[in-house]
Amino acid sequence: MSDRERALEHYQPVAGNGLLHRRLFLAGGAAVVGAGSLGLLTARPARAQSPPGLPEWMRAPGAGMSGYGRRSRFEEHVQRYVGSAPGTTGSGSSRTPLEQLEGTITPNALHFERHHSGIPEIDPEQHRLLLHGLVERPLVFSMDALHRYPMVTRIQFIECSGNSRPNLSSEPPATTCGDIHGMVSCSEWTGIPLSVLLEEAGVDPQAQWLLCEGADAAAMSRSVPLAKAMDDTLIALYQNGESLRPAQGYPVRLFLPGYEGNISVKWLRRIKLTREPTMTRDETSKYTDLLPGGKSLIFTFPMGVKSVITSPSGGMAMQGPGLYQISGLAWSGSGSIRRVEVSADGGETWAEAALTEPLLSKALTRFRMAWRWNGGPALLMSRAVDDAGAVQPTRAALLTEKGSQVSYHNHAIQVWQVAADNQVTNAYA
Amino acid sequence: MSDRERALEHYQPVAGNGLLHRRLFLAGGAAVVGAGSLGLLTARPARAQSPPGLPEWMRAPGAGMSGYGRRSRFEEHVQRYVGSAPGTTGSGSSRTPLEQLEGTITPNALHFERHHSGIPEIDPEQHRLLLHGLVERPLVFSMDALHRYPMVTRIQFIECSGNSRPNLSSEPPATTCGDIHGMVSCSEWTGIPLSVLLEEAGVDPQAQWLLCEGADAAAMSRSVPLAKAMDDTLIALYQNGESLRPAQGYPVRLFLPGYEGNISVKWLRRIKLTREPTMTRDETSKYTDLLPGGKSLIFTFPMGVKSVITSPSGGMAMQGPGLYQISGLAWSGSGSIRRVEVSADGGETWAEAALTEPLLSKALTRFRMAWRWNGGPALLMSRAVDDAGAVQPTRAALLTEKGSQVSYHNHAIQVWQVAADNQVTNAYA
Repeated sequence: MSDRERALEHYQPVAGNGLLHRRLFLAGGAAVVGAGSLGLLTARPARAQSPPGLPEWMRAPGAGMSGYGRRSRFEEHVQRYVGSAPGTTGSGSSRTPLEQLEGTITPNALHFERHHSGIPEIDPEQHRLLLHGLVERPLVFSMDALHRYPMVTRIQFIECSGNSRPNLSSEPPATTCGDIHGMVSCSEWTGIPLSVLLEEAGVDPQAQWLLCEGADAAAMSRSVPLAKAMDDTLIALYQNGESLRPAQGYPVRLFLPGYEGNISVKWLRRIKLTREPTMTRDETSKYTDLLPGGKSLIFTFPMGVKSVITSPSGGMAMQGPGLYQISGLAWSGSGSIRRVEVSADGGETWAEAALTEPLLSKALTRFRMAWRWNGGPALLMSRAVDDAGAVQPTRAALLTEKGSQVSYHNHAIQVWQVAADNQVTNAYA
Repeated sequence: MSDRERALEHYQPVAGNGLLHRRLFLAGGAAVVGAGSLGLLTARPARAQSPPGLPEWMRAPGAGMSGYGRRSRFEEHVQRYVGSAPGTTGSGSSRTPLEQLEGTITPNALHFERHHSGIPEIDPEQHRLLLHGLVERPLVFSMDALHRYPMVTRIQFIECSGNSRPNLSSEPPATTCGDIHGMVSCSEWTGIPLSVLLEEAGVDPQAQWLLCEGADAAAMSRSVPLAKAMDDTLIALYQNGESLRPAQGYPVRLFLPGYEGNISVKWLRRIKLTREPTMTRDETSKYTDLLPGGKSLIFTFPMGVKSVITSPSGGMAMQGPGLYQISGLAWSGSGSIRRVEVSADGGETWAEAALTEPLLSKALTRFRMAWRWNGGPALLMSRAVDDAGAVQPTRAALLTEKGSQVSYHNHAIQVWQVAADNQVTNAYA
């Protein structure tokens, strides 16, 4: 087979409307031999063999070093979407601008926030964590004491159960990926397994739940099942290498991988072991799913299998027909991602995307696919499958199952409409 | 076996001077059943079952949300160590405060820096990357064009070849881990495989090297072997999810995993394919290893297998006898870490540390070990072995092999001396 034939094979469609095989991402250099000669990519031929003239920033020494760095002023438009309840500045949410990021780690400064009475500024010297209730030995921990315990490190996502709610409205809101889906973020978390602290306190056999309380002005409180506390729950102290930020619970938070974000109580000050869930305000007035027929579901903790294409996505403009990278994120609250499929024709045909390895449990997984856009209308969708075989539902299927009152846990497939005028918009299909 | 016996087993020493088995980190909750009853950990019994009184930050709503977040004012002392050449602010290095971080990801604001003429502030709209020399089709890429190419994401470290040079002096400098070893950092990098761009340009069979030039005022330039360029080299655009910071090469840098950091040219503006290495100022006057006997080694790219205990470490104070977590980092420029051993008695006996999974190639790997310090003198050391079987050498062995003129590529074992007065200091042993 000639180089040209091999290259053509690598650029052959694998599903409708221009989707190309994922081997372009998987096989490295050898996979794209000769691709350039097909003129499929986006570079322009250079006019000369000589380097371009010296730009102004090469004519004088640049800026000095610093103790704690900053981003470029040309990137300052990359901001979270902030929305507060009327009359407050700190009760509401800010959402990660997913469409402006790449990879899987969310920078701490852009991690989504959801607060119930603002961000407390806690002095770590004064902060204490109390472990009491149905235990043999009530214990109180200073931050210095906590920092001597055995720690573990894991890359995992956190997602608000109210994420993607805008797409439950009757008409698709004309906005961006992050504005709709940005209440999910992923970090490298380091902390103490909660099981270690529970074993030190000695768990009373009658205990089945934990009341976990934050040190914010709302004393945000949730009930946690003991089984989850003994499984993979962390007392988190570090996020992406540095101490937690105040907006993420400084100096210490609870972290329950895969569970709805609200239960990972920030500014953690108290854990009380109990026989029954405490039925706090924060788990009865909110975070409860209304069902068809008037019933409601409470304590629906794991987030469903989900994915979203972050580029191209709502509010972006294409640069005309040609080759593009489709890039997105997939995750499951129950484990790792097994497969992501992408469609460019509204779900008629699908092709498998390339997944970034390693495939970590309860972490954001980046998927990518090459797409040759012909300049015509297209409907882009992604569909994730997790390692338990759970499949991301369509919006219609989710609404049929959950009913029209559904408000939390929307993990339905996102559809982005690409129009011939280069505009990309949110769509239901 | 009773809970108490199981707990005792888990806390039994596995090497001299108090090192405990790594299963404490590996086995989760079940491994430490009953540990608390032994009084080995650091919590204090709570005086009462009731929660502590309300701190001031629970009495009024906290701060509002923001588009781009900040860290706590109580953490502002965590800063890089900055050192500039006389008369400059931007020629020199800043080093990551490794002893104040946990996990494996380095926050972008604390990533080490090494600049040769400061940090240029580049307008991405104006920046171009030229690919020329021994190619079939010279190409020039705008940033918009680059962003449409297939990308990959990997977590990998970068280390300056001059890292750890202070420990080559005749007396051990009385300073911290980050001040000595902080020219290594680890990020999630996202970028385009360089092989994709090279294939598009078409590589002339005579080409064996690439001249890579930065757009800083020093036009920092290095020669890169074609084989590495076609292997795992990236044209990096994103670091830990967001666009590169200016100090890390915004808007685009070269990234050669495992190779000495200087060759990962920042602010990349030009790649020229050549027959031979260009012998630039930056690879002849610097980054060359002087050997015993007057010879010198050039183009010694991969960084050696290495590890360092980050806590406890130089400049820290112990809190008296008791249980501690020993925590550190290990890495290899040739692959992944297979094993890290720790000694608390100056190398007489060793025990295997727990490694944070997944064990990624050319990434920082966090290792941890539980240690019951008896309050007496101790010499803490760590020794890494990579997946090719290469073993980190002692300082004495390295000096014997490389000679007294050695200035780069110091990957020798670090020794921290713990004294009965709680002070931890740098030592040669």
